[in-house]
Amino acid sequence: MKLLAIDTTEDACSAALSIDGMVDERFEIVPRRHSEHILPMMEALLADAQLTLRDLDALAYARGPGSFTGVRIAASIIQGSAMGADLPVVPVSSLRALAQGANRTDGAAAVLSALDARMNEVYWGAYRLDAEGIMQLSGEEMVCAAQDVIVPGGDGWFGAGSGWGPYSAALGARAGVEQFNSELSVHAADVVRIAVAKFIEGGAVAAEAAVPVYLRDQVAWAKQR
Amino acid sequence: MKLLAIDTTEDACSAALSIDGMVDERFEIVPRRHSEHILPMMEALLADAQLTLRDLDALAYARGPGSFTGVRIAASIIQGSAMGADLPVVPVSSLRALAQGANRTDGAAAVLSALDARMNEVYWGAYRLDAEGIMQLSGEEMVCAAQDVIVPGGDGWFGAGSGWGPYSAALGARAGVEQFNSELSVHAADVVRIAVAKFIEGGAVAAEAAVPVYLRDQVAWAKQR
Repeated sequence: MKLLAIDTTEDACSAALSIDGMVDERFEIVPRRHSEHILPMMEALLADAQLTLRDLDALAYARGPGSFTGVRIAASIIQGSAMGADLPVVPVSSLRALAQGANRTDGAAAVLSALDARMNEVYWGAYRLDAEGIMQLSGEEMVCAAQDVIVPGGDGWFGAGSGWGPYSAALGARAGVEQFNSELSVHAADVVRIAVAKFIEGGAVAAEAAVPVYLRDQVAWAKQR
Repeated sequence: MKLLAIDTTEDACSAALSIDGMVDERFEIVPRRHSEHILPMMEALLADAQLTLRDLDALAYARGPGSFTGVRIAASIIQGSAMGADLPVVPVSSLRALAQGANRTDGAAAVLSALDARMNEVYWGAYRLDAEGIMQLSGEEMVCAAQDVIVPGGDGWFGAGSGWGPYSAALGARAGVEQFNSELSVHAADVVRIAVAKFIEGGAVAAEAAVPVYLRDQVAWAKQR
């Protein structure tokens, strides 16, 4: 099975190609320059594997939450690519991908993902590793002030993502939180791992349904525009 | 010759298909919902003409200036589509498309295009119709305060675009300005007309070069993020 995934959730930008479970990734920190970098990264991955988009089974992308413009870029590039190459699309939560990354880099099995949502808020989600090694959401993803996040019961929660930088005091002082890594970024390699599992479960959609997910309501994000 | 163009410069969103000079367009005013609307519009145009992306000669898009997020959406969708369908891309200035629209709707042959750039500024360009009926830039496109725009010599200038709303007093009180239409939007139908001419002249680029053009420098637009 061959899937290609991209991420432009925050300042980083990455693309990853999964061929029968083997994942190759390109990753760069390029604030505000995603439009210039993401396509060449996709092309390089495919060229190295001597594939074209049309040889793939599906495309995947980090659908948000995240930077207003970033999540739209990823969705738009994938919409176009999927339409052009006639492929289905697997949307993956950026918070879930972050949790998957915390498992890959820190061995975490219970992760509290937090992305900086500006306006003194965080995008937030709690995830646990399932038997197949894929992160699954506990409860709901949300956007709220750091002091209002809900930490599910249990011990050994690992904090991941940019939200743990500015709000580490408010987020970290919770029962069950043991450690955090605020430097961890969303990676397309983690997006594609989740996407493969989701694709097998029938979680793919048509190109036009590859839209961004903000969590924030219309009123709030109109201000960001 | 078959070209498909899209525009998401401001609150409107449109797609147009040109087949041997005959243009079919879909146009909607959908603020902040371009990601949900633009792909279905492209698909509907192609379905009506019984074509797929791969039957086209090139893709075109309004490359800016305009809304920070909007111009990135158009560029991203076209990057993906061009990569997926293996097509060249023709970037077209949104200000130039606006001038072409003023010729189509108001018969204007000399147009001062102005888009609202917020922060009390306008995106600005002056255009004249050439012998083939295509608008050509006089001078340079720029972003500046309304009172600082440069109106080229001559009479009979027609003002077009959203910049003529809030700044009509400052912009209109210039020598040579006779009339303006601040309701005029960029239309993909005008983008595609210019794109056909530009494509014939060899003005197409590869998918990865389909990037946005902001006019504003990095410092200023970082604030908009």
